[in-house]
Amino acid sequence: MGEDARVSADAGTHPFDADTAVRRLGDGRFAATISRNWDTPAGPNGGYSLATVVRALGQALPHPDPFAVSATFLRPVDHGDAEVVTEVVRSGRRLSVGEARLVQAGTERVRVVATFADLDAMGGPTRDLSVAPQMPDPDRCLLPAEPELAPTEGAPFTIGQRFDYRMPVALGFARGEPSGRTEFDLWMRFREPRDPDTWSMPSFVDGAPPAVMEIGELASTTVELTLHVRRRPAPGWLAMHIATRHVIGGYHEEDVDVWDSTGHLVAQSRQLALLPLR
Amino acid sequence: MGEDARVSADAGTHPFDADTAVRRLGDGRFAATISRNWDTPAGPNGGYSLATVVRALGQALPHPDPFAVSATFLRPVDHGDAEVVTEVVRSGRRLSVGEARLVQAGTERVRVVATFADLDAMGGPTRDLSVAPQMPDPDRCLLPAEPELAPTEGAPFTIGQRFDYRMPVALGFARGEPSGRTEFDLWMRFREPRDPDTWSMPSFVDGAPPAVMEIGELASTTVELTLHVRRRPAPGWLAMHIATRHVIGGYHEEDVDVWDSTGHLVAQSRQLALLPLR
Repeated sequence: MGEDARVSADAGTHPFDADTAVRRLGDGRFAATISRNWDTPAGPNGGYSLATVVRALGQALPHPDPFAVSATFLRPVDHGDAEVVTEVVRSGRRLSVGEARLVQAGTERVRVVATFADLDAMGGPTRDLSVAPQMPDPDRCLLPAEPELAPTEGAPFTIGQRFDYRMPVALGFARGEPSGRTEFDLWMRFREPRDPDTWSMPSFVDGAPPAVMEIGELASTTVELTLHVRRRPAPGWLAMHIATRHVIGGYHEEDVDVWDSTGHLVAQSRQLALLPLR
Repeated sequence: MGEDARVSADAGTHPFDADTAVRRLGDGRFAATISRNWDTPAGPNGGYSLATVVRALGQALPHPDPFAVSATFLRPVDHGDAEVVTEVVRSGRRLSVGEARLVQAGTERVRVVATFADLDAMGGPTRDLSVAPQMPDPDRCLLPAEPELAPTEGAPFTIGQRFDYRMPVALGFARGEPSGRTEFDLWMRFREPRDPDTWSMPSFVDGAPPAVMEIGELASTTVELTLHVRRRPAPGWLAMHIATRHVIGGYHEEDVDVWDSTGHLVAQSRQLALLPLR
């Protein structure tokens, strides 16, 4: 996995850090700017918007790591100016809890409740009950085919330029032949060099190709996304396990487990999302 | 599964309905009483408290079914008087979103954000990508051994009297021999006859025996619980699939999938919880 020396680069200059930056306005309010660098065909990626909200909460709460984050997506997030309005709900010794609202043009777009912790000061027992995805090293995996990076012709899809993906087997949707297999593994990292950290987990879990692509669905709208960050990730690639097991009345869950380059689970997410209505 | 004719009994007289009842006070506030009928050794079961909050939200929001519910547990819930303070966050055609705070003695105990929907008016496609747990019928399964109903000597454990459980294989912890197998299936229903519905899902998913019992842990404290109710359950038993795959620094997730008596998935939950510190 060492073909590219990841650097924990000057954080301020990486697009993720620049595009999720927030500026304190006082009274728990923060200014943010929603960039065009993380777009899906439907607009700014939800995980990117959420990462911006989480950074504001990180400035409002005393603990260093987002630990359990639940986001309810109320209305589409637009490019441009945004305000994140935070509230400290509880500040304890081990955990703190905050709430945040992403507001644009006077309208709330996303509501987030997040518990923060210090992942270096957990103290309790660890039991290995599960193993990381078994994949060849990233340099022995497949690069994504071009259609995956631009699934909708003419539509902006800038988030495809933000991440590197490596697949152990070709995903069917890239060849126009969805496999029906809605559970798969792949490697993922930022394309512009930057190691993963707890702050970038919202963007990684929602930036992975959705499993419903393998049943011919190219996009869905997130209703609710919960992320549990369980460990601080080691430098290098992330191994993503992606699964959708139930499509019911147009809604599906998407579960993502994230493992770091040392084979440790670092995050789990589940979202409930709505397929496009036809 | 028909050895006991479930009746959708006079809802008002069933302990679940009586104990989760709320009374509108005005301005989005509701009065509730936290009962002693749903106690674990550590106090009122979190799923029961959450079900009470969800009932209040159901009175505040226009849609009939809790659909995506995320609860952050801030402080222990006590027996007795409680107030649920609700806010309508968004009221749309397909979905509505509310927030609620369970307050006792002037202190917030639980914060909930919930999306409501009409499960009978989903409209989109359904794809069967997964199958229900394969278990013998409940009357060919095992009754729980007594120690499961009273794992802590002398402590009240009234929730054990609220539910019937049937196991296809004996769980090790009941014999004092935890199996290490933290993924298992069982049948579950209310002991006092009452069919399952969307309102009771919080109580079912958190009233199931936790998978960490099979690694010798009898209790844990929920930090965050997210529940997605995906279908209206049919009458009869519920098949529960319970799994913990990662215990890290004392924290574990607990995933519960709920299937109804016709073999359809009706709900999924995940919680992040803290094992007792020693």
